[in-house]
Amino acid sequence: MAITVVGSVAFDSIETPAGRRDRCLGGAATYFSLAASQFTKVRVIAVVGEDFGASEQSVFDARGIDTQGIERAEGKSFFWEGSYLDNLNEAKTRATELNVFGAFQPKIPDAYRDSEFLFLANIDPVLQKRVREAMPAAKLVAGDTMNYWITGHRDALKQVLKGLDILLINDTETRMLAGNANLVKAARGVLEMGPRMLVVKHGEYGATAFYGTSNNGFGAKTFRAPALPLEEVVDPTGAGDSFAGGFFGYLASQKELTPGVFRRAMFYGSVMGSFAVERFGTERLQQLSRKEVDERFEMFRELTHLD
Amino acid sequence: MAITVVGSVAFDSIETPAGRRDRCLGGAATYFSLAASQFTKVRVIAVVGEDFGASEQSVFDARGIDTQGIERAEGKSFFWEGSYLDNLNEAKTRATELNVFGAFQPKIPDAYRDSEFLFLANIDPVLQKRVREAMPAAKLVAGDTMNYWITGHRDALKQVLKGLDILLINDTETRMLAGNANLVKAARGVLEMGPRMLVVKHGEYGATAFYGTSNNGFGAKTFRAPALPLEEVVDPTGAGDSFAGGFFGYLASQKELTPGVFRRAMFYGSVMGSFAVERFGTERLQQLSRKEVDERFEMFRELTHLD
Repeated sequence: MAITVVGSVAFDSIETPAGRRDRCLGGAATYFSLAASQFTKVRVIAVVGEDFGASEQSVFDARGIDTQGIERAEGKSFFWEGSYLDNLNEAKTRATELNVFGAFQPKIPDAYRDSEFLFLANIDPVLQKRVREAMPAAKLVAGDTMNYWITGHRDALKQVLKGLDILLINDTETRMLAGNANLVKAARGVLEMGPRMLVVKHGEYGATAFYGTSNNGFGAKTFRAPALPLEEVVDPTGAGDSFAGGFFGYLASQKELTPGVFRRAMFYGSVMGSFAVERFGTERLQQLSRKEVDERFEMFRELTHLD
Repeated sequence: MAITVVGSVAFDSIETPAGRRDRCLGGAATYFSLAASQFTKVRVIAVVGEDFGASEQSVFDARGIDTQGIERAEGKSFFWEGSYLDNLNEAKTRATELNVFGAFQPKIPDAYRDSEFLFLANIDPVLQKRVREAMPAAKLVAGDTMNYWITGHRDALKQVLKGLDILLINDTETRMLAGNANLVKAARGVLEMGPRMLVVKHGEYGATAFYGTSNNGFGAKTFRAPALPLEEVVDPTGAGDSFAGGFFGYLASQKELTPGVFRRAMFYGSVMGSFAVERFGTERLQQLSRKEVDERFEMFRELTHLD
């Protein structure tokens, strides 16, 4: 099944202990699409400026991603500059220039409207809600958000959460959203806001899915996928979006959404996140075969399974 | 097979968001013994003062732990006071009184000398080395240490590491010991110091074993065991020592040390750590059946396994 994703397509300047890259292609929708395209057809809704040229377009084309929903506007694309020199787990933002993204009004091509899978990447919850409502055929809707929306746009975000099947956020965002320092209690609090499943991304420690009603006294059913202990993290940018792309892409590729499919989706999420950080920007995701993906999936199984 | 453990038996006063307990029975050797006693016969080498009475003795007796190596000295037992009010993941030490532990000279009962499994809990590496040398029958030797010995007694510690089969420490200690911020590189650095296996404890995120030579480009083979997402951590004290007890206790209970046995040992370590934090001090470990242990082992399998 095709996924439609709405989110940012951007240029990033990134500095990490491994070096520096200027204006590489980035943005949540870009990482998500490249990761999900390993599994299924992906359609993107975004806005870019005049600096988005043929070489950027070719990155999407090479992976067969449908970009008719990427609007070309006058001006420059969203630009972000960040540094991981102090802490590989958390970027220090040096500059954010919204540019054409500041006035983004998602336009949905007619050809996208039959998408049964919809991913609302981290953008203004008002826009997330609008896209969700404009895509009534979507049967499974997942989304992301961030501290900025949690603290400053809580009411709009809560409207989005009511219509979400799956929310993917990190530990800090989970605690912040629920106002509870205990992750399990916070997860239950988030599930009460609407999503049927919460996937908490732990960075180098993997991710935990909370869903349904507990049968073991722990408030919700849980499933934990590992991350690969990595010798070299070149650039952590986009790891969470790549996780989301692997997770949701795998779900969309399956005929039936069984509990086993959700478990494997968690592993594929971790797999795609582990590739994303191996090189700067989306470099690694651009050069990635399905064979490599499945080999790493098996490595993750071996890393965690008893037999 | 019987395990001999050398380490502290102490009284702890602990404050956490869940409440406060004064002078509960603690110490690394106590947590380790109680956890390991679920799996095998345990023998303790330690020193206590006159404040160690019949009720403390009965905690060991109830679990069939051999305490003839616990020396009774004049004075008071080791005492520690700590608070987790600011951070459940790291204790703030309010008071440390070494008391009789300050002059601890481990005395090994003759009946202990045939132990094939030896655990050197976190004590002065000079003493760890002395005990190891006095137990030549030990075929598998594991140990723990802490930042204090890593920074201030590095040479003595390095002597111990040369004779260790398995070192169990946490993330921060691993990075500190190897002088490398990347966990995988740090782990390889630690393995080059002597231990055949390094188990890095990640607290609420589980633990990773590094061992052998990599066949996948990641420097060492790895296996990752989860921790259970817990709704309530009442008291984190002793979680790492309980992990070590579960891990090493299970190993000692097995006829053959196959790769599969090591994997299950990692899970049993996580299982015992998860019980330890459910109540103050050693309360939960004192009231724990093997049936509960195995049920939680199955819960951990379900939490992480694809099929």
